[in-house]
Amino acid sequence: MKTYGVIMAGGGGTRFWPLSTKAEPKQFLNLSGKDILVNETIDRQAGLIDKDDIFIVTNESQASLMLERTEGRVLADHVLAEPAARNTAACIGYAAVEILEKYGDGVMCVFAADHHIREEAAYLRVMREAVKTAEETDALVTIGIRPVFASTGYGYIKHSPLEGKSYHRVEEFVEKPDAQTARAYLESGCYAWNSGMFVWKASTILRWYEKLLPDVAACLDSIRAALGTKREREVIRQVYPTIPRISVDYGIMERAHGVLMLEGDFGWSDVGSWDTLETVRARDAQGNITSGDTLLLDSKNCVVYAKHKLIAAVGMEDVVVVEGDNAILVCPVKEAQRVKQVVETLEKEGRTDRL
Amino acid sequence: MKTYGVIMAGGGGTRFWPLSTKAEPKQFLNLSGKDILVNETIDRQAGLIDKDDIFIVTNESQASLMLERTEGRVLADHVLAEPAARNTAACIGYAAVEILEKYGDGVMCVFAADHHIREEAAYLRVMREAVKTAEETDALVTIGIRPVFASTGYGYIKHSPLEGKSYHRVEEFVEKPDAQTARAYLESGCYAWNSGMFVWKASTILRWYEKLLPDVAACLDSIRAALGTKREREVIRQVYPTIPRISVDYGIMERAHGVLMLEGDFGWSDVGSWDTLETVRARDAQGNITSGDTLLLDSKNCVVYAKHKLIAAVGMEDVVVVEGDNAILVCPVKEAQRVKQVVETLEKEGRTDRL
Repeated sequence: MKTYGVIMAGGGGTRFWPLSTKAEPKQFLNLSGKDILVNETIDRQAGLIDKDDIFIVTNESQASLMLERTEGRVLADHVLAEPAARNTAACIGYAAVEILEKYGDGVMCVFAADHHIREEAAYLRVMREAVKTAEETDALVTIGIRPVFASTGYGYIKHSPLEGKSYHRVEEFVEKPDAQTARAYLESGCYAWNSGMFVWKASTILRWYEKLLPDVAACLDSIRAALGTKREREVIRQVYPTIPRISVDYGIMERAHGVLMLEGDFGWSDVGSWDTLETVRARDAQGNITSGDTLLLDSKNCVVYAKHKLIAAVGMEDVVVVEGDNAILVCPVKEAQRVKQVVETLEKEGRTDRL
Repeated sequence: MKTYGVIMAGGGGTRFWPLSTKAEPKQFLNLSGKDILVNETIDRQAGLIDKDDIFIVTNESQASLMLERTEGRVLADHVLAEPAARNTAACIGYAAVEILEKYGDGVMCVFAADHHIREEAAYLRVMREAVKTAEETDALVTIGIRPVFASTGYGYIKHSPLEGKSYHRVEEFVEKPDAQTARAYLESGCYAWNSGMFVWKASTILRWYEKLLPDVAACLDSIRAALGTKREREVIRQVYPTIPRISVDYGIMERAHGVLMLEGDFGWSDVGSWDTLETVRARDAQGNITSGDTLLLDSKNCVVYAKHKLIAAVGMEDVVVVEGDNAILVCPVKEAQRVKQVVETLEKEGRTDRL
């Protein structure tokens, strides 16, 4: 059976403002200093998925930029353009009908465009096992990440081992916990981080849509009927914006039976904000993480990203300084999440030129 | 007797880097939010000096920019272009021979282009008295500023009152003191800040040059002989770079006899660096001083100058954040003087594109 990759690249990515913007969302950032996140995501599949079998689902307004930035990594007609953002159930469903209708059933590996994985060999081993599991069991398979600290920033999957199997049974999906609960999860050993990576047959996930999300499934049926016809784009533009907005986690994963989980331990991170940047980029001897033209004197544990100008920091500690095209952010590392407040304020004030 | 203004505008001004640069030195900065420093300096003389009697001495490379930025405030032939920077004795001597040769003797009021004065009426009162004193006594007159705190950043003038006179006798010029000495100066009441403002007749200062700086005087004589002839510029370009580099303070003021001082108390500041900015610009309710497009959330006592981009500061206290054309500076307010180190480092590394 064929293996497909489906990369969800719909994120707005204000958490890395002002480097990430509406025009230049997180998946296009080169946070690691090696390549932009979406290209790292594509390249990481080598050996698991043929590059001509990788699809990217992104907003229609970003489809041409996506093709440009991925520099020939993906076939032009494999960039699936969403006329509207309708959450992950719509996104995955669209990819599933496209695959099933035009290329034939196969195992879909679904991942975000903007996550980081440190140990690629370990990642590929787990993914191969996940593909095999999805193919053999016809189950919905997800990748749970063995927690490395008591994160309150991720959802968790409660799981239990299955005698003699490489995969675990999913007991329950749970929301982001408070700090105490997160510590208990970490100690228990039977909770994994919900990475949002899924592996299943295109036909299988669509059967679950029919069962659990019939309204979504009906929309997908309309789209599927038009695929490959002259009216394809027209119908997608008509129907897509009417697909109920629901996440695949909430609509399917938390409600489906027999969901399986492969446990991964390969340095995964969703690179959520400036304060978690060290997961993708090493600190220097002073604990600083820098990019672009920077000059740091007596500065420690700072994150300094210069895009066009030189950023000079003198005597600074634990601060984030980031220059984007239209704005500069300065804040303590531990308050980096508050970039959201800045973005919200600018939105409220209609200062979209800075976003 | 005529009163002339001589504005010394030769400063490099790296202390306000990255807003001030070699191409855009401090006198061209609008730090107050009202106008650029050199224009504030010119406009402040209204009522004391006729605007057509104001001269600006500046580097040849900046003469046209000076004319442009002063927007008609100064006559084109009153911008005196120095072919090389040779310190203040040369600068003042050049202005003195120009005045004496082309316009006739008069009282020269000499000031820097980039200082700030809060109380202009009080300033004018003192200056009028100084002009009168210089005219009547034929002495070298300087303005000493009554100290408002124990500054270690200024040189001091030790002075003593003269029975029944508005002016004091200068006892001694002293270097920048340490903190303890500065406190003693402040308490004694007989030390004033050396503001670098001088008032004297053109003929008087030139006589002192002949006596105390004969090498400088000889160069000035050569220049004076060429003034108004076709060879004027040629001779200035030839002679000027050979004038001994010496300051008027060191070469004349510290060595001349009978120097007089008028005491000024009019909110004078040389606006030395980012940490003294509150002398020219009010803090807001949170103690921040901002310019340009800024967005401050939970930030206190910061100095934030945005030139082109938005600067967003979240949860910051007591920091300077400045965006210039080519660079961005971030440092604690109390370490703002260390901008010099940054500039020196860039110079050493030949990164002149950032200076």
